[in-house]
Amino acid sequence: MGRELSLTSELLKNKFMKKIPRDAEASNVLIGEVDFLEKPFVSFVRLSQATTLGGLTEVPVPTRFLFILLGPPGKTKSYNEIGRAIATLMVDDLFSDVAYKARDRDDLIAGVDEFLDEVIVLPPGEWDPKIRIEPPKKVPSAEMRKSVLNLNELGQMNGSAGGANIAYVGPLPWYCSDIYDGFHIQSISAVLFIYLGCITNAITFGGLLGDATDNYQGVMESFLGTALAGTVFCLFGGQPLIILSSTGPILIFEKLLYEFSKNNSIDYMELRLWIGLHACFQCFVLVLSDASYIIKYMTRFTEEGFSSLISFIFISDAIKKMAGALKYYPINRGFKPDYITSYKCECIAPDQGESVKSGSHQCFNQIVLIKCYPFNLTDMDWTQLSKKECEKYGGALVGNACKYVPDLALMSFILFFGTYSMTVSLKKFKFSRYFPTKLRSLISDFAIIISILIFCGLDCLLELETPKLHVPTEIKPTRSDRGWLVMPFGKNPWWWYVASFIPALLVTILIFMDQQISAVIVNRKENKLKKGCGYHLDLFWVGILMAVCSFMGLPWYVAATVISIAHIDSLKMESETSAPGEQPQFLGVREQRLTGILVFVLTGLSVFLAPILQYIPMPVLYGVFLYMGVASLSGIQFWERIKLYLMPLKHQPDFSFLRHVPLRRVHLFTLVQIVCLAVLWILKSTFLAIIFPVMILGLMVVRKLLDLMFSQHDLAWLDDLLPDKDKKKKEDEKKKKKEKKAAEPESDEEVGEMLQTQIYGVIIPQTEPDPVCINPPTQNQASECKYTEHFLNV
Amino acid sequence: MGRELSLTSELLKNKFMKKIPRDAEASNVLIGEVDFLEKPFVSFVRLSQATTLGGLTEVPVPTRFLFILLGPPGKTKSYNEIGRAIATLMVDDLFSDVAYKARDRDDLIAGVDEFLDEVIVLPPGEWDPKIRIEPPKKVPSAEMRKSVLNLNELGQMNGSAGGANIAYVGPLPWYCSDIYDGFHIQSISAVLFIYLGCITNAITFGGLLGDATDNYQGVMESFLGTALAGTVFCLFGGQPLIILSSTGPILIFEKLLYEFSKNNSIDYMELRLWIGLHACFQCFVLVLSDASYIIKYMTRFTEEGFSSLISFIFISDAIKKMAGALKYYPINRGFKPDYITSYKCECIAPDQGESVKSGSHQCFNQIVLIKCYPFNLTDMDWTQLSKKECEKYGGALVGNACKYVPDLALMSFILFFGTYSMTVSLKKFKFSRYFPTKLRSLISDFAIIISILIFCGLDCLLELETPKLHVPTEIKPTRSDRGWLVMPFGKNPWWWYVASFIPALLVTILIFMDQQISAVIVNRKENKLKKGCGYHLDLFWVGILMAVCSFMGLPWYVAATVISIAHIDSLKMESETSAPGEQPQFLGVREQRLTGILVFVLTGLSVFLAPILQYIPMPVLYGVFLYMGVASLSGIQFWERIKLYLMPLKHQPDFSFLRHVPLRRVHLFTLVQIVCLAVLWILKSTFLAIIFPVMILGLMVVRKLLDLMFSQHDLAWLDDLLPDKDKKKKEDEKKKKKEKKAAEPESDEEVGEMLQTQIYGVIIPQTEPDPVCINPPTQNQASECKYTEHFLNV
Repeated sequence: MGRELSLTSELLKNKFMKKIPRDAEASNVLIGEVDFLEKPFVSFVRLSQATTLGGLTEVPVPTRFLFILLGPPGKTKSYNEIGRAIATLMVDDLFSDVAYKARDRDDLIAGVDEFLDEVIVLPPGEWDPKIRIEPPKKVPSAEMRKSVLNLNELGQMNGSAGGANIAYVGPLPWYCSDIYDGFHIQSISAVLFIYLGCITNAITFGGLLGDATDNYQGVMESFLGTALAGTVFCLFGGQPLIILSSTGPILIFEKLLYEFSKNNSIDYMELRLWIGLHACFQCFVLVLSDASYIIKYMTRFTEEGFSSLISFIFISDAIKKMAGALKYYPINRGFKPDYITSYKCECIAPDQGESVKSGSHQCFNQIVLIKCYPFNLTDMDWTQLSKKECEKYGGALVGNACKYVPDLALMSFILFFGTYSMTVSLKKFKFSRYFPTKLRSLISDFAIIISILIFCGLDCLLELETPKLHVPTEIKPTRSDRGWLVMPFGKNPWWWYVASFIPALLVTILIFMDQQISAVIVNRKENKLKKGCGYHLDLFWVGILMAVCSFMGLPWYVAATVISIAHIDSLKMESETSAPGEQPQFLGVREQRLTGILVFVLTGLSVFLAPILQYIPMPVLYGVFLYMGVASLSGIQFWERIKLYLMPLKHQPDFSFLRHVPLRRVHLFTLVQIVCLAVLWILKSTFLAIIFPVMILGLMVVRKLLDLMFSQHDLAWLDDLLPDKDKKKKEDEKKKKKEKKAAEPESDEEVGEMLQTQIYGVIIPQTEPDPVCINPPTQNQASECKYTEHFLNV
Repeated sequence: MGRELSLTSELLKNKFMKKIPRDAEASNVLIGEVDFLEKPFVSFVRLSQATTLGGLTEVPVPTRFLFILLGPPGKTKSYNEIGRAIATLMVDDLFSDVAYKARDRDDLIAGVDEFLDEVIVLPPGEWDPKIRIEPPKKVPSAEMRKSVLNLNELGQMNGSAGGANIAYVGPLPWYCSDIYDGFHIQSISAVLFIYLGCITNAITFGGLLGDATDNYQGVMESFLGTALAGTVFCLFGGQPLIILSSTGPILIFEKLLYEFSKNNSIDYMELRLWIGLHACFQCFVLVLSDASYIIKYMTRFTEEGFSSLISFIFISDAIKKMAGALKYYPINRGFKPDYITSYKCECIAPDQGESVKSGSHQCFNQIVLIKCYPFNLTDMDWTQLSKKECEKYGGALVGNACKYVPDLALMSFILFFGTYSMTVSLKKFKFSRYFPTKLRSLISDFAIIISILIFCGLDCLLELETPKLHVPTEIKPTRSDRGWLVMPFGKNPWWWYVASFIPALLVTILIFMDQQISAVIVNRKENKLKKGCGYHLDLFWVGILMAVCSFMGLPWYVAATVISIAHIDSLKMESETSAPGEQPQFLGVREQRLTGILVFVLTGLSVFLAPILQYIPMPVLYGVFLYMGVASLSGIQFWERIKLYLMPLKHQPDFSFLRHVPLRRVHLFTLVQIVCLAVLWILKSTFLAIIFPVMILGLMVVRKLLDLMFSQHDLAWLDDLLPDKDKKKKEDEKKKKKEKKAAEPESDEEVGEMLQTQIYGVIIPQTEPDPVCINPPTQNQASECKYTEHFLNV
C-alpha cells in the first residue's frame, strides 16, 4: 500500500511538473500554532538565491520566498485564511514582480495595496458562497494591468487582439509554412468536407450550365475546370483559404450569352473566349491600378449584408432542391393499402392508348390481343416495357399508380433533415460534458463526415433508389462536337473581338465584387488570420484562370463565399486545455495551402472515384449544404442583432456594442439592414440577378446615408468603424508621401517595388490595429470617449 | 418632450414601486467634492423617524438613513467607489439590521467587520473584471447567516428544505384547496397531455387484453374501467396526483388466468370476480395492519432502480411499437421507379390461383375469361376486389407489389421521431433567451400538445393512411355474450370461491408493490409536495376498485409510475421572476384533484369524441410515450451518476454527493445498481415478468448487502439516508410508547382514533425532517460529521 501510494504521488509530481513553467521558483507559506506566543508573529523572507528545501515543496522546484506565520492557539481558521490570502497574493503576476524587486517593507505593502485595489468583491447577502464560479474565458494579461490601467479596454472588447497588428508582407514568406502547417488530423476532415461540397457544387452548376448552353459546358467541364482553377489558385493565390467555385451570377451571364449567340448566329465558344481574354486584361488593369482599395469603403454593414444574403440563398436553394424531390417523387396521398389490387400502371401501345383513356371497360379485348401475341415483332409486348422504354417508344402509361413514386420523397426528406440535424448536434458535442476534450473535438471536427457516412449507410440499408451523386467517368467534352481547345479566330467577324470588351466589363465587375467581398469576409478579423491577405494577387490569378478556362472552354471561377467560410470553420484551432477549469480559446485558423490543393486534386480524381461516390445520395449532400448556409450565418453580428429583437432585455447577451449604443439605435440599424436585404432578395429574383454583386454598391450607398441618421459614435460601435479616424490620418499621410514621391525622380528599382506592392499588398481596414481609448469608456462616459491617434505604419 | 419625459419617469416609478416591499425605507448616499475641505468628511445619519426628503429619492419612499461623504477635489473615482460600497452595505439584510439597532459607532463598525468577514474576493490576476457574473440560483437567507453559521448546511445541500417537515394529516383538510388549486392554465395542458397518454394506454392495453382473453375484456372495457377507476381514485384517493392505469404484470396475470380457465373449463369471469374480491379483502387487511410501513425500507437505491426500469420499459415499448410499423408496412426495398409498369398486385380466383403461380404466361386466357364476364354471379370479378375482400373470399394475391406498403413506414417514423424531438425542443425552449418568460413557459407547458397538433396536421396534409387512434363509439361489452355485471355464483364449483384466495395473494402483492412504489416515487422530496401523502387510503381505494371492476368485468387498475411522473412534471410550479437577473425557482407541484378527475371524465367521454380522436395517428402517440419515458429518467440521481462515467473529472457537475464521497465509491455504487437492473431486465423478459414488482424485494436485499461494502457515511450521501439515526431513535421511542399504551386499558374512542391513523397516516422516511449537523462538514471534516438528535414528533 505504501509503495503504491508513493508511486501514485511520483506520477502526480510528474503530472504537475508538466504544468509548471520552466525556471519556476516556489514560494512556501507556513502557518502554525505555538503555545509560547501571545501575539501572532509574521515574517516574509526572500532568499537571495532560490534553494531546494528538501521535502517542503510537493514538486522539485527551488524555493525563493518563505512566509511564516506563528500565533497563539485557538485561531487556526483565521491563520489558515491568512495563509490562503498570502498564497493567492504570491500567485499574482504583478505582486510576484513586486516581491522580487521590493527594496523594503513599504514596497511590499504598496504592492499589496495595489492588489487589493483591483480585487473584486462579492457581497455576502446577494451571493451563495457554496456556488463554484466558472473560471473566466479569458484572463486579462498582467501587462494590461501594469500599463495605464484599462488603456486597451476599448480595443480589447472589440475582440480584435489576435493578429490584427500584422502588416501585410505578401504570401511568399509563408510559403513553406503553408505546406507544413497543413499536416494535422483536422485537415483530413476539412478536405473531405470541402471536397464533398465542391463536387456537389460542380455537379449542380455543371448540370445547370449544360442546360443553359446546350452542353457546350457540362458536368465534365465543370469538374475539370473546378479542379484546374482550384488547384492553381490554391498553389499560387494570396489567400489559399478561399475556395473557387462557379457562382450564380456567372451562370446567368453564360445563359444570356448563349441565347444571344444562338439567336444571332455567333459562335458562342469563340465569343466567350474573347470576353474571357478581355476580362482577364481588365483584371490586370484593376490590379495595377490598386483598385482593390475600393473595398476599404466596405464596412461591416455591407460585408455582413452580402454574406447573409449569400447564406440565405444557400439555405433556400437547399430547401428548394428538397422540395423538388417531393415533386419529382410524388407521394400517393390518398393511398389505401387495402386497395393495392386496384393500383397499377400499364404500358399501352400508342394506337390503343387512346381508346383505353376513353373508356376502360370496352378495351379488354384489345389488351388481350396484345397480351396474347407477345412475340409479334411489329406489335411488341408493351406490358414488358419499363416506364422509360414505354415513353421512348411512344406508348401511353395508363393506371392510377403511374404518376406516384413510393417512399422516395419521404426517404429523401429523412436523409436531408437527418444529415443536417445530426451534423448540428455533433458539432455542438464539442461543448458537452462527456468524454475527454480530444475525443470531443475529433467528433466535432468530423461531424459532417460522420453524418454523411451514417446516412449513406441508412440509405444503403433500405436499398431505395434515392437520387445519387453521379460523376462522369470518362474525360471527354460533354458535347462531342467540341474539343479541349477553343480557337480564337475564324468563326466570328473581327469586330466581335473588340466589341466583346463591353460584356467583359460586366463580367469583370461581377468577378471583382464577388472575389473581393468573399476575400474581405474570409479575412474578417474575427478569424484571427495571421498570414495576411493578397487581394491583388488573388485577382491576378483569377484573371489568368479566366483566360485559361476560356481557351479550354471551361466555366469561369471566382471565390465562393459560403464554401470558403465553411473551409475556414473546419480549420479553426482552439487551445488545448489541460489544467482543470481552463477554457479553450480560439487561436486562429490553420492557414495553409494543403487542404485547398488536396480538395481540388481529389475533385480532379473524382472521375476515378465514381464507383464510391455513387453511393452518396443527393439529399444527404443537400443537408450538408443547408448546414453550410446556417453555419455561415452564425457569428455574424447582424444575425446576432436580429436575434435581439426577440429577446427580452434581461436575457440579452453581453455584447460590447450593447454597452455603448442605446438599444433603440441598434434595432433601427438592424432594421435598415433587413430592409436592404429584403430589397436585394426581391431584385435577385428578377433578371437583375446578373448584376447581383454590383448591387452591393447599393448597400454601400445606404450605409453612407446612415451617417446622416446616426451619431458617429453609435456607428463606430455597430459598424466596426473605430479605426475610421486613423484611416483618414493615414490616408493623408500617404497622400503626402505620394506627392513627395511624385516630385522626386523614380529609379527603376523603386517602380518595380511599387508594382510588387500593388500586386501583393493592399491595406484593409479590418486588419489595421485597433484604436485605443484613453478615457476608458464606462457605461456612463461612453459618449465622451475619445480615440487616440496610435496606429502602426503599414 | 418634457411632458413625455415626466410621464415616462412616472411610469418608471410605478414600475419600480411594484418591486419595492411595503413599508420600505430609503437610505440616501450623498457624495461630493468641495474646495474648502482638505481631508474627507464622512457622516452617517440615522433619523429617528423616516421622512420623505422631497425629490431626493427616485421613488416616493421615506428616508431613514443618510450617508454623506464630502472631500477635497481630484478623487471623484475613489469617492464614488466608497459610495457604492456603502450602498451595497446598506442593502445587506444583516447590516441594515445592525444599522437600525446600532447604539454607537462601535456597533456600526462591528457590523461592517462582520460583513467584510463574509465577503468573497476574486483576485485580479485570475479574473476578468469585465465579465458579468450570473446571479446565483439561490441566495442563502439572512437567517442562516445570522444563526450559527452553516448550521443547516448539510440539510440545505440535500435539497430538502421544501415541505419536508410537515406531518401527515390526511387528505381531508386539503379537500377544498384540492379543487380550487386546479384552476390554472397549466392544468389545461396537463389534462390534455395526460388524457392522451391515458387513452393511448387504454387502447393499447385494451387491445392486448382483448387478445389475451378472447375479448372478454376489450378496448371498451378498458375505456370504461379507466374512466371509472381513475375518477373514483382522484375523487377520494389520498394522493390524487397518482394516475391509475393497467400495467404489464396485471396483463400477464389475466392472460395466464384465462388460459388456465379455458383449459380446465372454468368460468373465467366468475373466477376472476372471486380473485378480485379476495384481493380487495387482502388489501383491507394490509391497510389495517399498517403494512405500508414496509416501504420505509425502500431507499433511493431501490426506488430509483424501480423507476428507471419502468422508464426503460416505456422507452423500449415505444421503440418496439415503431419497429412494428416497419414490419406492418414493409418498404419495397429494391423498388425502381422506372419499372413501375411491372409492379402490380392482382387478386386471382382460388382455383385459377394455382395455375397462375406455376407459370404466368399460359394463364392469360383464363384471366381474360374472368375479365370479360364480370357480371357472372358465380364467377365474381376477382380483380375488382380489395385486398381484404380477396383474402376473405379465399382468392390469392399475386404480384410483386402485394407484400409492400409504400410511404407508411417512413411516414410513421417521421411522425414518431418528429413528435418526440419537437416536444423535447419545445420543453427546452423555456430556458432559451427568446421571448418573455410568460410566453416561454406557456410554450413549454403546452409543448406536447403543440407537437401533437403539428404532426397531426402534417399527417392530415399528406392524407396518408397511417395507423390512427380508433376508440369505440358505442357503449356495449366487446363480447356480445357478456353483460355489464358478473354474477358471483352458479358457474363454478363452490370450492373455487375459497381456492381463489391463493391467486388473489399474488395479485395483492403485485398491486401492493406497484401502488406503493409509485406512491413513493411521486412523493419524492424533490417534488416538494406540501399536502402530504396517503399510502393506506390509496391502497384502500385500489382495493375497493378491484372489487367493483371485478363485478363489472372491467380490468384491474393500479398506479402507473411513468404517467404519474408525467402528471407531476406537467404541474410543476416555478416562481415568476420579475427583477432582472433573478432566477426562477422550483416552488412545488400544483397539488390538486381537478386535473386527474378531468382526465378520467374525458376518458369516459372519449366514446363521443371518436370523430375528433380518429385524426390522431398512433406514431404521434408513441412519440409522446417515448418522451414520457425519457423525461421520467431525467432528474433521477441514478441516471446522473451513470452520466458521470462518461464525464472527465473537470466537467462533472457540482453534485453535493461528489463533494463528500470519493468518485470511485460513487462509480461502484452506480455499477451495482446497473447490474441489478440488468438482471431484472433479463428476468422481466422471462415468465417471471408476472412477479416483476415483487422482484423489487431483490433490490432491497442487494441494498442491504451494500451496507457491508460501503461506509455508512458514503451510503448516507448516495442513498439519501442522512436521517437514518434519527429514525432508529424515533422507532425506539415509538416502541416505548406502544408498550406503555398496551399496558393501559384503551377507551373505544382511542381505538377508533388508532384505526383512523392507520388508514390515513403512515410515516415515510422521505418526508421526515432532515437532520442538522452541528459541526458543519467541510470537505476535510465530512467523515467526522455527527448527526444531532433534533426531530419533530409526528
